[in-house]
Amino acid sequence: MSNGEKRKTDTTASELFQKGRRRKKTNGDFVAGVLGRNRTILSQTITLVESNLIDDITAAQEVLYHLLPHTGNSIRIGITGVPGAGKSTFIESFGMFLCNLGFHVAVLAIDPSSSVSKGSILGDKTRMEQLSRHPHAFIRPSASGGVLGGVGRKTRETILVCEAAGFDIILVETVGVGQSEGMVRSMVDFFLLLQITGAGDELQGIKKGVMELADAILINKADGENKQSAMNLKAELNGMLRYLKPATDGWTTRAYTCSAINGEGIKDIWDVICRFQEGAKKSGLFHRQRERQTIHWMYSMINDYLKARFYSHKEIQQALPSVEQSVLDGSVSVTKAVVDLMEIFEKKG
Amino acid sequence: MSNGEKRKTDTTASELFQKGRRRKKTNGDFVAGVLGRNRTILSQTITLVESNLIDDITAAQEVLYHLLPHTGNSIRIGITGVPGAGKSTFIESFGMFLCNLGFHVAVLAIDPSSSVSKGSILGDKTRMEQLSRHPHAFIRPSASGGVLGGVGRKTRETILVCEAAGFDIILVETVGVGQSEGMVRSMVDFFLLLQITGAGDELQGIKKGVMELADAILINKADGENKQSAMNLKAELNGMLRYLKPATDGWTTRAYTCSAINGEGIKDIWDVICRFQEGAKKSGLFHRQRERQTIHWMYSMINDYLKARFYSHKEIQQALPSVEQSVLDGSVSVTKAVVDLMEIFEKKG
Repeated sequence: MSNGEKRKTDTTASELFQKGRRRKKTNGDFVAGVLGRNRTILSQTITLVESNLIDDITAAQEVLYHLLPHTGNSIRIGITGVPGAGKSTFIESFGMFLCNLGFHVAVLAIDPSSSVSKGSILGDKTRMEQLSRHPHAFIRPSASGGVLGGVGRKTRETILVCEAAGFDIILVETVGVGQSEGMVRSMVDFFLLLQITGAGDELQGIKKGVMELADAILINKADGENKQSAMNLKAELNGMLRYLKPATDGWTTRAYTCSAINGEGIKDIWDVICRFQEGAKKSGLFHRQRERQTIHWMYSMINDYLKARFYSHKEIQQALPSVEQSVLDGSVSVTKAVVDLMEIFEKKG
Repeated sequence: MSNGEKRKTDTTASELFQKGRRRKKTNGDFVAGVLGRNRTILSQTITLVESNLIDDITAAQEVLYHLLPHTGNSIRIGITGVPGAGKSTFIESFGMFLCNLGFHVAVLAIDPSSSVSKGSILGDKTRMEQLSRHPHAFIRPSASGGVLGGVGRKTRETILVCEAAGFDIILVETVGVGQSEGMVRSMVDFFLLLQITGAGDELQGIKKGVMELADAILINKADGENKQSAMNLKAELNGMLRYLKPATDGWTTRAYTCSAINGEGIKDIWDVICRFQEGAKKSGLFHRQRERQTIHWMYSMINDYLKARFYSHKEIQQALPSVEQSVLDGSVSVTKAVVDLMEIFEKKG
């Protein structure tokens, strides 16, 4: 990710700064500010990356172009879990532990359901009071959707911006709505599933397919009266994991316990992640997974774009409801319906 | 699925037959032959549906148009399992049981990896010697890929043709390669995962996400020395299933045992499927699931078509390798790469 030498232009950040002096904030300002680890400019750059305005997208891509050589040097950790699993409390505790080890920690969030108005809730700094005040931590609320890849693109690019700003550890939290776990899995190196114990039926319903995405399952709230049931759940989950192919080839997904409240198990899960990282870097898997993720991201953005083009086509929009109806009532075969839609789409205006 | 009254034309199958008398085999011949349960014409109609020639596709769609009012009256059962799980033996035994109850049973297969030359292997009638000779059974080898939705489209349309030909039960087998389980799951009412016992490590590796697709897990080869370990596995799987959301809302996926060799458990699994069908029809879920599947199929065919259009674009094909490289070496951001590709694609020749 750091082949600055291949660039076509040799414009440096400071030259960009000179060139654009008269504008309010130039792309050079953003680049220099992020590389200079200026928190205010970091936030503004992320806002630029999150913008849906065409001019901002163009500007953001130029800024990213200059930041790219400085990206890739973090470990990206995804964190998911059902509501009530204690994600905020865990991130507060885990983040503080990492900051106190000297790491710079960025906390991002993915919420595909977030609109502009709801976007700020998930990443609300009041959820992580201590961590949000730590000078090594940076907490960013979740982006809202929009054009060009939406929430997924914005979070990926925010990861890159944070890496360029010197963050060593990026925690990407997901609310677990819709396809958000898969989205986060596709942009992180290590994926952590938080789980809690509960009585009987409450255990039902680990979301379909999510366990298979995890590099570790961490049973939170393993304290006080809960401790024994957490240990039991750990044993059960380890039994189940024997039946599932691991999320990452060559790595064995296991269950662990922790208490975000009293700190037990927090160091242990970090040790697990370090062991994972060390092994994956040695085997080349770490790099290969990132390459695969980047290419996959490109193709999924292309696909989003193709779909957007088709479904924003006026005549297609007009035709779809009745086509759906004809297919459902059996008066048109699906293939015929698709062939007809294709013809509408191909017909040049 | 049977709203013949809404059709625009009133051409009957026999009129079509008259109209096309001079051609070698008319669409009317196909329609009349299938509805008349003529095995030879049924096979030829499926061959027509599987053809990649534009003229055949058009003809097949006209034939399907006339068959559609006669479709939908079967139960569609998907069957998957690792190689060695005894899929062929199970289908032979289960199919014979159903035929002897008086049902007409069609056996289809999905193999996304099949080419024209390999296509015949999976469905080879020699795999199911008894069943292939039963007058109530019809076994069709797996289709090979090609245009317009490929294997998935062909199998779906073959299901419809078989239903129009009066088959009550359609068994769709998958080899379990690539995304084939998801493909089969999306076209059947009930999805059965065959499993076998094995010692220790052999149990590892139920394919990611497949257990979550299943409406029942059937442990085959529960006979002789294997019986006890099959019972143990059943208990373990039932334990695991408690943690997973069921494949079908309102239905509890459980593990069962059977022996395709001695016939034990074969009637029981049929009872399970009947119970499922009865409940799902009562609740309306059966119909809703089929509607959802049909619409989903339409949208996935549209998406296939959009992708085919993009990736067959000459300049895109030429540009892609170097774009991929630039994205991987970090000299271009993914978003910029996609924007550039879009421009190439939009540029009218």
